[in-house]
Amino acid sequence: MAYTIYLSGEIHSDWREQIKQGIFDAQLDIEVLSPITDHDSSDNVGVEILGAEENNFWKDHKAAKINALRTESYIGRADIVVVRFGDKYRQWNAAFDAGMAHGLGIPVIVMHDEELTHPLKEVDAAAYAVTETPQQVVEILKYISQA
Amino acid sequence: MAYTIYLSGEIHSDWREQIKQGIFDAQLDIEVLSPITDHDSSDNVGVEILGAEENNFWKDHKAAKINALRTESYIGRADIVVVRFGDKYRQWNAAFDAGMAHGLGIPVIVMHDEELTHPLKEVDAAAYAVTETPQQVVEILKYISQA
Amino acid sequence: MAYTIYLSGEIHSDWREQIKQGIFDAQLDIEVLSPITDHDSSDNVGVEILGAEENNFWKDHKAAKINALRTESYIGRADIVVVRFGDKYRQWNAAFDAGMAHGLGIPVIVMHDEELTHPLKEVDAAAYAVTETPQQVVEILKYISQA
Amino acid sequence: MAYTIYLSGEIHSDWREQIKQGIFDAQLDIEVLSPITDHDSSDNVGVEILGAEENNFWKDHKAAKINALRTESYIGRADIVVVRFGDKYRQWNAAFDAGMAHGLGIPVIVMHDEELTHPLKEVDAAAYAVTETPQQVVEILKYISQA
Amino acid sequence: MAYTIYLSGEIHSDWREQIKQGIFDAQLDIEVLSPITDHDSSDNVGVEILGAEENNFWKDHKAAKINALRTESYIGRADIVVVRFGDKYRQWNAAFDAGMAHGLGIPVIVMHDEELTHPLKEVDAAAYAVTETPQQVVEILKYISQA
Amino acid sequence: MAYTIYLSGEIHSDWREQIKQGIFDAQLDIEVLSPITDHDSSDNVGVEILGAEENNFWKDHKAAKINALRTESYIGRADIVVVRFGDKYRQWNAAFDAGMAHGLGIPVIVMHDEELTHPLKEVDAAAYAVTETPQQVVEILKYISQA
Amino acid sequence: MAYTIYLSGEIHSDWREQIKQGIFDAQLDIEVLSPITDHDSSDNVGVEILGAEENNFWKDHKAAKINALRTESYIGRADIVVVRFGDKYRQWNAAFDAGMAHGLGIPVIVMHDEELTHPLKEVDAAAYAVTETPQQVVEILKYISQA
Amino acid sequence: MAYTIYLSGEIHSDWREQIKQGIFDAQLDIEVLSPITDHDSSDNVGVEILGAEENNFWKDHKAAKINALRTESYIGRADIVVVRFGDKYRQWNAAFDAGMAHGLGIPVIVMHDEELTHPLKEVDAAAYAVTETPQQVVEILKYISQA
Repeated sequence: MAYTIYLSGEIHSDWREQIKQGIFDAQLDIEVLSPITDHDSSDNVGVEILGAEENNFWKDHKAAKINALRTESYIGRADIVVVRFGDKYRQWNAAFDAGMAHGLGIPVIVMHDEELTHPLKEVDAAAYAVTETPQQVVEILKYISQA
Repeated sequence: MAYTIYLSGEIHSDWREQIKQGIFDAQLDIEVLSPITDHDSSDNVGVEILGAEENNFWKDHKAAKINALRTESYIGRADIVVVRFGDKYRQWNAAFDAGMAHGLGIPVIVMHDEELTHPLKEVDAAAYAVTETPQQVVEILKYISQA
Repeated sequence: MAYTIYLSGEIHSDWREQIKQGIFDAQLDIEVLSPITDHDSSDNVGVEILGAEENNFWKDHKAAKINALRTESYIGRADIVVVRFGDKYRQWNAAFDAGMAHGLGIPVIVMHDEELTHPLKEVDAAAYAVTETPQQVVEILKYISQA
Repeated sequence: MAYTIYLSGEIHSDWREQIKQGIFDAQLDIEVLSPITDHDSSDNVGVEILGAEENNFWKDHKAAKINALRTESYIGRADIVVVRFGDKYRQWNAAFDAGMAHGLGIPVIVMHDEELTHPLKEVDAAAYAVTETPQQVVEILKYISQA
Repeated sequence: MAYTIYLSGEIHSDWREQIKQGIFDAQLDIEVLSPITDHDSSDNVGVEILGAEENNFWKDHKAAKINALRTESYIGRADIVVVRFGDKYRQWNAAFDAGMAHGLGIPVIVMHDEELTHPLKEVDAAAYAVTETPQQVVEILKYISQA
Repeated sequence: MAYTIYLSGEIHSDWREQIKQGIFDAQLDIEVLSPITDHDSSDNVGVEILGAEENNFWKDHKAAKINALRTESYIGRADIVVVRFGDKYRQWNAAFDAGMAHGLGIPVIVMHDEELTHPLKEVDAAAYAVTETPQQVVEILKYISQA
Repeated sequence: MAYTIYLSGEIHSDWREQIKQGIFDAQLDIEVLSPITDHDSSDNVGVEILGAEENNFWKDHKAAKINALRTESYIGRADIVVVRFGDKYRQWNAAFDAGMAHGLGIPVIVMHDEELTHPLKEVDAAAYAVTETPQQVVEILKYISQA
Repeated sequence: MAYTIYLSGEIHSDWREQIKQGIFDAQLDIEVLSPITDHDSSDNVGVEILGAEENNFWKDHKAAKINALRTESYIGRADIVVVRFGDKYRQWNAAFDAGMAHGLGIPVIVMHDEELTHPLKEVDAAAYAVTETPQQVVEILKYISQA
């Protein structure tokens, strides 16, 4: 009866750890998948493995494609994609992941502060739950994991 | 040999009109689909048709769901989705549309200024072309429409 | 830019005609598909064409399968499925159609009186709009059909 | 050679327990998935986790969406969906689940009393077996599970 | 509101012509697709176009693959596949076509004499209607084509 | 690196046992799925579990649908479907299974005597291998199972 | 009853024109789609529209992605993909197109000289016809286009 | 968090062993699938199991179809397909595999020397990473396998 969930979005707070801890504490049978959350490593992986680029566009391109190998594999095997939008940065990749999950027919749980409601309305409208805290996500996971 | 394209994203400049004019001038056999680009109308359609809401979350929700009836139908029938990111607003719906197209296997052309390259790297990496101007999009459409 | 819509559900009021009239009045480019709405004809078609049955179960079975040839073809080609629940009868076929559309990834608009909100909550939750009147459906269709 | 089955529908009798017992007694290699069958919990989960709503429509909406996270995941991974219609309540969610399974190409076994034959004819017509008792479902499972 | 139907199976009676005549007489908006029904032409097309074969297996192989270009294209675009089993020959290709349609989720109408009921039970079980005459097929098409 | 194979078709010779023995002897990591091969049980299962029918058509119908629960589940999870045509009976269900596998994009291995080449040409043309003996099937499985 | 075909592969002989002429002469109802066959234009389109690149890899990359907008759209809407391998160049794009069509379930006709049989065996094995001349392709199209 | 990868292409160097060794050394949780890489065995398997052919075309055909049973099963279950092009032979099967993976929506990593950049531009353009050495592939796998 296990679920596989993918945790997409913000990488500058510990929301993923809080969800994992909540899953561990409640002994839920849930596999948690995440992107690479080390910012520098994620930005530089393309040129580090595949060779330097003078143009930053191609540096970013090569890194983003390698990260997509992980991201798209994990989203594709998830039962639920949880997407967190923080209060900083544009986080277009989070919205992109949410759209991809929606296009693949995989349900999305969104997490963000109330003040982002209006700019995120299209993402929220596609979501199965709009949360504000990791605790709410854990409560949902506990609820849907009952025997 | 016609194409159907969907123009997603920024609604505060005339980039859609420039693309349409370019298609018209070049007499390309291309059907152009767009979202509702009237900002107020798009924000209020939910409560205007389906009844008032005290909570803005639900006001936005009802509007976004009605807009999605059009957006998702149009993206689903497009051969190519063109997504423009402007220099203002967060435009998460644009990234969401790009992700949805990618999830559905529909190729994406992105349009944005060079300064957005880094935050848009995941979206760009999934794109078949990264452009900066409507003229470049028209040139691509002219190229792929040759007899 | 046309849409194809399928009108599922209640057959004992004139809601389909009201929607068709609204589409006609607003000159919308929308194709409207419907099931056979003649109750007797729909109930008896199986035995009338394929031969009598002693057991009513098989009489119903043969009729329902022939009706499904139309229903499933039409739902499969619809951009939007509108499902109306009236105040009489159990209308399980309406909920079945809504579920089928959802399973196929086709968006649903639901129409029913407010008093049915609780028993229809699962259907409503999957819908892109929950309406009470044919006029609201027409307003939505007008909105999403703007040039 | 295991099967995964999902038991949808009526929550006011012990039919699920009878099927599980029959599977256990016959030592069948079958995984059984079910929705949350605690009525109050299922009705209130939305507001309890995600915050109160003044309007019952949104209370129901939030609950139904959270329940759908479980329901749709489980239906999507089932080899067979068993749907029981009881003699009380409208049970539109049961018909909705049957439709969703049909739309996804997952075979359905229906269970209901003979007197519901006519109103359920469309659901029955799509079913691979129309049963009246949990014992019949168990017999089918035993039959298709033979070495 | 048109349908596209594909007429598979027996090629030694005029059942296709009877169905086409019935569609024409009733002025139904139905496109009728058929395989090549000239037996010799169908058997020899491989070697005639692609060169002689000493081994009949490969002569048949080349012919069957060319015929499949038509058959599979037509089945794939059909709303309904009608499959007739005559009283002669083994007609495995008819059952193969019925299975392919079923695998693709396209509804099947079967036509055969009552005496073939037992050996065709698996095909019949997957069908939306089991008929004995072209007239019954025409009646079904007239019924589902009503405005 | 395991494969799952489904053995469809003839039930009056021991070809399935020969293939299973060959797989066992060669210690191949292959899961073998089969239909119910007890002829009487398979014919009567519908009326035995779901109640008697006066009309043999419905007796057959109920049995075939229950058997399809197993057959379609197993074909859907197979990597390869092996279909044997014997020298007796019409075996339309074997051709139906082959067509279904083809429609689902699952490769087929056919097994039959040379004298059936012409009537089976459409099935053979869709096959990845046309064999005459269980030993040949085992040899293929051994070949594709090499480390 | 029309077909849409896509002509992939060699761009240094007039085989496409011969097929088009044959279709025209026989008045076949067939839409013919092709890639851009001007070699220089196809190689340079990326840098000409999207800006210069110092590194030839990215020059090629940008060109190939723009060409893929056309190629993948056209392959996706084709009923049949015809792929010609000439006697010069490596033509990996032709084999790539054939593989893509096969992955999408679209039947392929291959055209090449006999001497290429061995290196092309995997492509040929997936094809519905292996031809050597445009005339053979036209003959096949005439055959499958008969009324 | 495991991945399954398929290693397609060149069979005359030890690149597969280098990747396997790198995966083993780094203790990555990755399943590695490969085609049969014994050239003679792969060429002759058709006639050896299924009987001799006078015409080499059919000898190749029978062998390629049996190999496709393995190749297509493995590609279909892979998360990532790695395709290596060596400096000898035409290797159309490698490009065909890359195209098939792309058509199925499975990401591709390409490996080849820089001098092949131009003729492989279409394949490279569809790839998530273009590498030159097995070590680079291993580095990518290590990167995307981090906890």
